[in-house]
Amino acid sequence: MARMQIATLLTDFGTAGPFVAAMKGVILQVCPRARIVDITHDIPPHDLLAGALVLARSIPHFPPGTVHVAVVDPGVGTNRAILVGRYGNQTVIFPDNGIISLVERTLPLRDIRLCRNLPNLPQFISSTFHGRDIMAPLAGEILNGLNVSALGPRPATYKLFDLPTPAVEDNRITGQVMYIDRFGNLTSNISGELARHVGGRMKTVNTTCNAKNAGPLVKTYGFVDIGQPLVVFNSTDMIEIAVNQGRADELFDAEVGTPVIMVMG
Amino acid sequence: MARMQIATLLTDFGTAGPFVAAMKGVILQVCPRARIVDITHDIPPHDLLAGALVLARSIPHFPPGTVHVAVVDPGVGTNRAILVGRYGNQTVIFPDNGIISLVERTLPLRDIRLCRNLPNLPQFISSTFHGRDIMAPLAGEILNGLNVSALGPRPATYKLFDLPTPAVEDNRITGQVMYIDRFGNLTSNISGELARHVGGRMKTVNTTCNAKNAGPLVKTYGFVDIGQPLVVFNSTDMIEIAVNQGRADELFDAEVGTPVIMVMG
Amino acid sequence: MARMQIATLLTDFGTAGPFVAAMKGVILQVCPRARIVDITHDIPPHDLLAGALVLARSIPHFPPGTVHVAVVDPGVGTNRAILVGRYGNQTVIFPDNGIISLVERTLPLRDIRLCRNLPNLPQFISSTFHGRDIMAPLAGEILNGLNVSALGPRPATYKLFDLPTPAVEDNRITGQVMYIDRFGNLTSNISGELARHVGGRMKTVNTTCNAKNAGPLVKTYGFVDIGQPLVVFNSTDMIEIAVNQGRADELFDAEVGTPVIMVMG
Repeated sequence: MARMQIATLLTDFGTAGPFVAAMKGVILQVCPRARIVDITHDIPPHDLLAGALVLARSIPHFPPGTVHVAVVDPGVGTNRAILVGRYGNQTVIFPDNGIISLVERTLPLRDIRLCRNLPNLPQFISSTFHGRDIMAPLAGEILNGLNVSALGPRPATYKLFDLPTPAVEDNRITGQVMYIDRFGNLTSNISGELARHVGGRMKTVNTTCNAKNAGPLVKTYGFVDIGQPLVVFNSTDMIEIAVNQGRADELFDAEVGTPVIMVMG
Repeated sequence: MARMQIATLLTDFGTAGPFVAAMKGVILQVCPRARIVDITHDIPPHDLLAGALVLARSIPHFPPGTVHVAVVDPGVGTNRAILVGRYGNQTVIFPDNGIISLVERTLPLRDIRLCRNLPNLPQFISSTFHGRDIMAPLAGEILNGLNVSALGPRPATYKLFDLPTPAVEDNRITGQVMYIDRFGNLTSNISGELARHVGGRMKTVNTTCNAKNAGPLVKTYGFVDIGQPLVVFNSTDMIEIAVNQGRADELFDAEVGTPVIMVMG
Repeated sequence: MARMQIATLLTDFGTAGPFVAAMKGVILQVCPRARIVDITHDIPPHDLLAGALVLARSIPHFPPGTVHVAVVDPGVGTNRAILVGRYGNQTVIFPDNGIISLVERTLPLRDIRLCRNLPNLPQFISSTFHGRDIMAPLAGEILNGLNVSALGPRPATYKLFDLPTPAVEDNRITGQVMYIDRFGNLTSNISGELARHVGGRMKTVNTTCNAKNAGPLVKTYGFVDIGQPLVVFNSTDMIEIAVNQGRADELFDAEVGTPVIMVMG
């Protein structure tokens, strides 16, 4: 069987304009066999943290060799670098602005390169749309077999966010909301692994969000009554606060950064 | 020519998060040749009726052998079953919560099975994301040739909605709004077939929506002036109330369930 | 390598309903090898100018032979014609309502035909969804090799918008906002080419939008402080007014049609 040639796109372009289609057209011109999958184009404009979170939660599920293009890029056209990283068996093209921060914690870094020697770039390279003019053709070339290590030297350094980490004191974990999904569910920065480590047998678990009781730790949403709050280990094994068929963001008046505290015994 | 291997996705996940891409990555890992088509990810959260309607209006148009995955699943992780149904020449994977109700009325049921014997499931199966952990790999396996009848026994029963049906009295049909599309057009639950049966030669047709005159029965939107209401047999041969280049939902203050009455002579 | 068979879709259908998927299913039935790319489905309902702009900015980036289907079609089912145009090496199927106006200015017209002799149409052709019943099967047939010139005669005339063009007086260009993207950036109808021609050495450039100073002409967004306005030659070489990591539409209280004036020396 022929090698798969999958490219994914993650951007803050929205889906109403011509920008996403322009990138797809360019990828298909360079690599006619490319299969293009949208991760999302609805990252809030310039929201690098949201982009970093969605990128890290998406790309581990893709087949080996997939090339991911992440374009949340407020510094487009300035001297910020474009990087290519090989993480696990995935390849990511991204601007050097921290959007890779959570992938870096999720998958092992195999190689990372500055994109300097780019073959076959278009004649006109705009200063405002490197997604179309540099990153899309580069994705196509990598799918065609371009050797990433030939693109340029390893960067001396590159930007990674200081992400908030949970604080542990005895049997208490103090974390915060990291991501709010479409259902209003609140993903915290407390991993299931940490909770199980601190909680031991977890005879008692008391979770609060924004200083309000977040309900019992259960297996899934439907184990409390409709409209009631609950705590689960979610599908990425993070502590998540939800409301069965309701909105936890509204019930807890929560946003990214709202405190989540677990006390276990 | 090789068999087509098309999977479609219908969810209430929205497009801003990592969930849709995770499902696509998993399908492509299991079935590298799969071609994935989005039906929609914008079903309102937990809205099984909207999911049922969009599913039934979409899937009859796909090539034989297409595998459709419908994930509006408020009961994820509870003991609700996952079912696979063969309807006409389409295959649908869905939770047992009624989302299949309108497909059941649209296409002939050939076989339906409880999903019990699932090959090659991932090691970690979350309790909150069966779309990624069970339904996506199953879709890939079915595209790869897995025999649906080997998945498990036929269910003794499964959930179907009691959908409102129009009432007929002499030359009067009393129905209701079932679906409101992006344009504000109101699809009723009165089929063109029923209207033609009751209306006979249809010398006179008087249609009201929310007790207001819905305008003439015409061939298409452009047969009345801009801003005027009208009634059409729509593209699924249902009675639809619209406003030429305007919004019928606003003009008639209508929502799902609003009465639609036709009196014909 | 086999010929690529790419179809793109641009509609005002939104993504919540069954309409887009129905078109994709039909295309795949006619042309099983078709690869379908969404340009956008979020054109505001019936907004032909927005559709025309996004179409013209997208399609030049696609591989030769791509078939584009543009369905913003308030006149569906009336006697408005359906046309097929060959522009550059792209093919566009569109209703005769002006949506082609900006493609017509962007790419050279090679051939244009009335769609009269359509092979293999479905048995039921609705009056309200020609995207599904006529344009989608036609796209599939053209991808399969159907000769466009056999579809019908050249139209005697077809609709093109009177698009506003900038006025030039000495060293002053008076244009207007043509498109507002997701970031609130304002694309004007002043081309970079015109600005360079009028401006000569561009020692001084004074740009206003809605009579307010629009900031310096710079290479890209990041060359002014965050929150400050700026002017760039954008990725389609049009004069664009933006705010670094902010919203120009809000700062300038701008909409489509708002005046943009450049005075250069």
